[in-house]
Formats: sequence, structure tokens, C-alpha cells
Amino acid sequence: MKALRYNGSELALEEVARPDLNDEVLVRVVRSGICNTDLEIVRGYAGFEGTIGHEFVGIVERSPNDPGLVGKRVVGEINVGCGECVLCRAGDSRHCEKRTVLGIHGRDGCHAEFLTLPARNLLEVPQGVSDAAAVFTEPLAAAYGITEQVEITPETRTAVLGDGKLGILCAWSLAQRTRHLYLIGKHQSKLNAAGTDNIEGILLKDSEKLRRSFDVVVEASGSKSGLESAISLLKPRGKLVLKSTVHGLVEWEPWRVVVDEITIVGSRCGRFAPALELLKQGRLDVSRLVEEEFTLGDGIRAFEQAARPGSLKVLLTP
Amino acid sequence: MKALRYNGSELALEEVARPDLNDEVLVRVVRSGICNTDLEIVRGYAGFEGTIGHEFVGIVERSPNDPGLVGKRVVGEINVGCGECVLCRAGDSRHCEKRTVLGIHGRDGCHAEFLTLPARNLLEVPQGVSDAAAVFTEPLAAAYGITEQVEITPETRTAVLGDGKLGILCAWSLAQRTRHLYLIGKHQSKLNAAGTDNIEGILLKDSEKLRRSFDVVVEASGSKSGLESAISLLKPRGKLVLKSTVHGLVEWEPWRVVVDEITIVGSRCGRFAPALELLKQGRLDVSRLVEEEFTLGDGIRAFEQAARPGSLKVLLTP
Repeated sequence: MKALRYNGSELALEEVARPDLNDEVLVRVVRSGICNTDLEIVRGYAGFEGTIGHEFVGIVERSPNDPGLVGKRVVGEINVGCGECVLCRAGDSRHCEKRTVLGIHGRDGCHAEFLTLPARNLLEVPQGVSDAAAVFTEPLAAAYGITEQVEITPETRTAVLGDGKLGILCAWSLAQRTRHLYLIGKHQSKLNAAGTDNIEGILLKDSEKLRRSFDVVVEASGSKSGLESAISLLKPRGKLVLKSTVHGLVEWEPWRVVVDEITIVGSRCGRFAPALELLKQGRLDVSRLVEEEFTLGDGIRAFEQAARPGSLKVLLTP
Repeated sequence: MKALRYNGSELALEEVARPDLNDEVLVRVVRSGICNTDLEIVRGYAGFEGTIGHEFVGIVERSPNDPGLVGKRVVGEINVGCGECVLCRAGDSRHCEKRTVLGIHGRDGCHAEFLTLPARNLLEVPQGVSDAAAVFTEPLAAAYGITEQVEITPETRTAVLGDGKLGILCAWSLAQRTRHLYLIGKHQSKLNAAGTDNIEGILLKDSEKLRRSFDVVVEASGSKSGLESAISLLKPRGKLVLKSTVHGLVEWEPWRVVVDEITIVGSRCGRFAPALELLKQGRLDVSRLVEEEFTLGDGIRAFEQAARPGSLKVLLTP
């Protein structure tokens, strides 16, 4: 089968064997999405080698232990735990120390014709949710997961910093909870694209007037200056949700966090079920975030497009 | 009266007028303590000019609106709010935007013969608590206040990073709550001095074996490398309490906070009443932290002593 693989120095489309089954479920990929984490991997930041990609929707092709799954349209949680540690036994493998992560750590990913995952990682996609929407389940879960970490009420003044695809998903997600949602970014066109009735788009250069006015700020800009900008927007005792995984050293002044008693919450993966429920209810039109679609065979060009500044979601079809 | 004043470039013992009363209470200082924040001010970091010092115990000399206070032995909360904003009306001026702070911001402090504070800031010191203990109320409140920000149960694995006076107060405070308290520092002598039956002292160079093992880590080292060290000690989803106000730019790698979904909690001032209660119950022998006592007239030399690496608490007597 074809697979987009990173070998530690470059990305290449390769012909490889179908993944081995063991006890896992074989999924034929229908659509996959390119995430900024994929771009970081290709820049060599994550130390991963193999087939990349972790956002997908697919059809179950073979399922040795659970034949009822065959033919089902599924998405899959990306962390595969050991199944035995305290965290796994509590039903949440996202922080299992021995976990593998689809296309990110110790496990081939989804920019390929097939992948495998354990049956427990798979969720059926409800009828009525298109493939182009279902492929957003993973990043939407990551965005909506913020609401499980930080209390957002209708009166919580909330800002999302960053008008890229992650920032926009965060804004759309949190606007389900609060009436006071500001999306702050550098591109008027993207702020317009992201805008809905209940989201106010603000250019970063005009955000000075909003200093010290938010209860919650989500840093999703992916830039090294995002942390300081986000802190400056917070009220004393405000909460900063760190969402971008910016690699490398960042300079900041932590004394502000102490004096204003700010809380910083690191936020990575969310649960899939609530995200699928949002998609099922049609409360978010995530397909608006699709920038361009490519075939897997054209994957290298797709990555070039995804890496362009300001690019929204690029999808691949095997 | 005599007062230790910082004029923006140097510290000097000056003869100045007694503070004006207005509606505030005049307190004759009995003992004051030198804090690391005082040392930062004298290094020019905080932009404050005037009489420094914010840790004190004293006797009320005059109280225009509440004569019953005269003669009482008191300590005082250091933040003086506007009294009118939402925060002040809720009874907590610690984050009032218009606040002054004793000896730190917009208000002369306590390394002097007299100071003034509003009556509402003052708390009577219980009988049985010595002056040398009562002068620790402010830093003890700051340390014990952590327990109001982060849940510490008897089973919470907790580390305090930094064996200076702040770190030791944090360790003693949190050991009131958990059976698993580690104090990690660079000085075996201070670890020994701080040690009690329920605190395990560990040299920083031996702490590698404790990586990723704590639920809560308190950063009280005052060093720029403390943040990264503290993060490395935390379990995934652990909580880091930032206690030191290290000024200037610090380099770190925030992606670890995202991947491990760590929470960072900035922590500054605590409430005085619970700290006074701890002292009243005699559960902490804070006077063990006194390094040396000086007269106010010898204040410059006292500051030199307090600034020596490894120095514990230096007290002044007017």
C-alpha cells in the first residue's frame, strides 16, 4: 500500500506492506487531515519516524476479535495505552507512560491506505456526519476538551489567540458555552471566515484595548510570542489554556504569573464522544475549514500547501 | 523617625517624619523581617521608591476610628485595596487594580519605627505567639495559602523545590496536609535544619530518581532554572505552584506543559487568619528560621547579611 513516511530527514511517498494485524482492527482510510503536529514532525522536532498522520475517518476492513465492526465507518482515538497501568485501567490512556500515539510516537499513522488500532480506540461515526466533517473529530475533540479542563459559563469572558485551524476550532467550540468569545489573530480574512454571530474577531494589533480583560485565554497561535500576548490579555487570577505545542526554547517573564496569580493549563487531547456529538447535532460546520484536498499520491504537494503560512485544513484521500 | 528607604539607586537609613494618619491606624513596629522581595526592590527590579519592608509585628499607637485597637499587638495584611471595586467589596483586595502594597507599591513599608495601615488590614496576634514568630505571619500566609489553590490530601505526593526560607515555610505548611513531602535543595545543612519527622530532604543533584513522580511541585527556589526542574519532577497532569517572583526573562520549553497537560498555578499572597491559627497552635516553630537579628540603625548591614547566599530570615528591631 501507499504511505507517507518520514525517515528522520525527509518525507516520502513509499510503497509498504499493509500493517500487521495482531489483535488490532484494520481500517481502510477514507480521508485524512494534515495537522500542525505533522508539520512539526517533518521538521524533525518530535523524533518520530514512520507513517505520519493521526486525523482520519475510515471503514473497518477486518476485525479479528469483534467481527461486528467490519464495514462500519469509524474515527479513532490516537493514544494506545498499555492497558494495564492505573491510568489505562481507569479508562483513559492519554497519559499512559507506555502509550504509542498514531503517527506521532511508536505507531504508524493514517496518511496511508490502511492503519490499525485496537477496537477500544474506535468510535462509529453517526449517519449524517460527512467524511469531510468526521475527519475533524480529533482536532475538534482537542479543542472542545478545553471545556473539561476549565469552567466556561455563559458569562466567562474568553479569548482565543490564533486564527489558524486550531484557533478557529477552539473558538467555535468555546462559543458553544460562553456568550463572550473573542477570536484574536493576524489575518482579517481568516477572522471573517471564522466569524459567526456569537464570535467577535479582533486583529492582534488592535487587541491592546482588551488587555487584562479576560477570564480565560486560549493560546493557539503556535508562535513563540503567543504566551506573553496571552498573559497580557488575562485578568488577575485568570486562566491561560496552552494549546499550541511550540517546540524549542521560549523566553518569558514568569513573575507576572505569580503576581497576578494566573493559572496556566496545558491541554492536548480531548475525548472523541463529545466532539462526535457536536458534529451529529450539526452545531459546527467544520468543513468550512477545508483549504484544499489532495490524493495521497500527491501527498508531498499537500504537505507543501499545508505548510504555507495561513493555510487552513488540507485533506488527503488515498 | 528612622526608616530604611530605597531611592531608586541605593538603600539608606534616613530620618523622616512619622507617617501621616489620615484615616489609618498608626502602628509602632516591634520587629520586621527582610524578605527576598525587599532584596529584589533594592536591586531595582520592582520600580518602588520609599520605605521598604512588609513583614512586621507591632503595637497600635493611635487609631482614630477604632480606639479599641490602641495597645493591641498586631500583624497586617499588606495589600490595601480601593474599597470600592468588585474585588474589594467581595472582601479580598489582593488583586484590586488600584491597590497599594506595604513597602512594595505606592505605600511606605515597615522597616521603620512606625507605619500606617487601614484598621481592616490588621489582625491581633494571639497571646502565646512570640514576636519572633508573629513576624513570620506574612510569609507563612503566603506559603500556607497554597493549600487554598491546590488540593493537598494526605496521599498527595508533594515536592518543594528550594531550601531557602520561603521553600522551608512552604514545606512546613504543606506537611500539615500530606504524608508525602519532599524538600529539594542545594544545601545539606539547610535540608537538615528544615527537616522534621514528616519531611524528606533531598539534594537537587540526587533528585533525578524522583523525575515524573510528584502530583504537586512548589517552585520556591528563586532561580531561573527552577521552572524546568520543577516541571521534570511532575507526573503527567501534575500541578506546579510558582511561588518565587524571579524577575527578568526566563527560557523554557512550554511544549512539555502541553504534552503532559500540566497545570501551573501562580501563587503570591495568602490570608493571615489561617497562618495565625497555625502559629497559635504551635504546629510550626518558625523562629528556627531566624538567621540573625539587627537593630534598625544597623539596617544596611542587615540587608548585606540577608543578601548572602543561603541566608535565612534576618530580623530588624527599631
